[in-house]
Amino acid sequence: MIGKAFAPSHITGFFYAHDDPDPLKAGSCGCGFTLEGGVSTTAWPSNTAEVYVDGVPSDAPTTRTVIELLADKPVHVESDLDMPVGGGFGASGAGAFSTALAINSALGLGKTYNELAYAAHVAEVKNRTGLGDVAGMTLGGIVIRTRPGTPFTLDRIPIDARDVYCVHFGPISTKSVLSDPKEKALINVAGKKCLKELLKAPTFDHFMRLSRKFSVDTGLISKKALDAIETVEAFDGMASMAMLGDTVFSTTPEGLSSFGTVIKSRISLEPARLLK
Amino acid sequence: MIGKAFAPSHITGFFYAHDDPDPLKAGSCGCGFTLEGGVSTTAWPSNTAEVYVDGVPSDAPTTRTVIELLADKPVHVESDLDMPVGGGFGASGAGAFSTALAINSALGLGKTYNELAYAAHVAEVKNRTGLGDVAGMTLGGIVIRTRPGTPFTLDRIPIDARDVYCVHFGPISTKSVLSDPKEKALINVAGKKCLKELLKAPTFDHFMRLSRKFSVDTGLISKKALDAIETVEAFDGMASMAMLGDTVFSTTPEGLSSFGTVIKSRISLEPARLLK
Repeated sequence: MIGKAFAPSHITGFFYAHDDPDPLKAGSCGCGFTLEGGVSTTAWPSNTAEVYVDGVPSDAPTTRTVIELLADKPVHVESDLDMPVGGGFGASGAGAFSTALAINSALGLGKTYNELAYAAHVAEVKNRTGLGDVAGMTLGGIVIRTRPGTPFTLDRIPIDARDVYCVHFGPISTKSVLSDPKEKALINVAGKKCLKELLKAPTFDHFMRLSRKFSVDTGLISKKALDAIETVEAFDGMASMAMLGDTVFSTTPEGLSSFGTVIKSRISLEPARLLK
Repeated sequence: MIGKAFAPSHITGFFYAHDDPDPLKAGSCGCGFTLEGGVSTTAWPSNTAEVYVDGVPSDAPTTRTVIELLADKPVHVESDLDMPVGGGFGASGAGAFSTALAINSALGLGKTYNELAYAAHVAEVKNRTGLGDVAGMTLGGIVIRTRPGTPFTLDRIPIDARDVYCVHFGPISTKSVLSDPKEKALINVAGKKCLKELLKAPTFDHFMRLSRKFSVDTGLISKKALDAIETVEAFDGMASMAMLGDTVFSTTPEGLSSFGTVIKSRISLEPARLLK
């Protein structure tokens, strides 16, 4: 049997991390949003275990970990990505989550949606590729993560679907940022403050302002990203940086195009899901 | 400012009820699904509080309760229903939830999605019009409610969007069924057993079989509904009865049309949401 599934891109605006020896309890709190684009994965039983990404055999460690966690027999997995890897779009989490959903169908594993999501989350934590993206992908929209790890404890900012514009400068390694204790301490102080503030006035504009403040206060922002954000602001737009990737997301394309190719997408309210 | 929102229909297949003096803790466990159709609500600040349903001034007690719980000034609310009231489609919950989302925008109340959903749930419990529909509407798809009341504790059966066919014979009052202690005891024994069984093999087919068994074991099924279900089964389809309404839902239209007008819809994965 063939299983097909999709998981949306997820961009975090601000966060704080919680370490735990149990990967089910590790994770992050904060706020981010899902996009229309994401990762589509097709899976079927096979004699040898194989993972292809965009048509090419791939290491894809997070996806391989989720297969090890779930599959009871070898499976062929093909993932196609709408987004760059390492750009703060949650590519590894979307790859692992769509794979979990697809192999559940392909192999008849009989798991619930949460069981599959939690396996993808554990795969992310083990590979240190992400801490909160999979949680956001289970809901869709602008998702607030109020407790780290599983069971996912989530809320949303009530919004309608709206366009968002991104420019991607290059990858940042989630692993390397989260391995620096000083950097992590800065992130956790700033992230906790942002979450507390957001819950007092949970609106889209407030989320954008807090994300921008977070990216500067933590020193995570690159010079180029700050330039782009300030240029967007000169056009009365709002922008911030994807956590963690050298990517700027903005409410308007104006001013952005001088910094690179503008990717137009939409904040989608659709969670990760099976496809026909 | 004008606020617009939509909440999907929600049909419960099986459930058990939990009473509690605190309406935030009362609710039901079980499993149901959301449809593409639902309730669309528009709201704006007004000099007098008014609720219109399908263009006509309406008592709409559950919607009025949610307005009392949330609004800090008078508001004009207009809801348009895609489904019959009392048919087990969760019309009262969808009306209240879409109203909560719409007035949050219209009045700038600054609530999170969960706060609005919980207000709609409390309005349902207070009016005894439903116990679990609002929870299902916060996720979309085939939603499993594993704990009663708030915070909603939910899971899903992983499915793709698929068509479903309904025939509606007439209303059943949720209030009257849940007021009969003997009936409630029967429901709770059968519902707990169904939930336990479903979690062992969380698939769509299993959900359909358990729902059918529940409707018969509890004696809630009407003679006409049972006739319709057996006719669908003669055509190799699966069907059961909406909880609580004299409505049959089926995987196929075959055999159903001799029992009344067949409403074709789709199990949608979209939760209640703001509209542009």
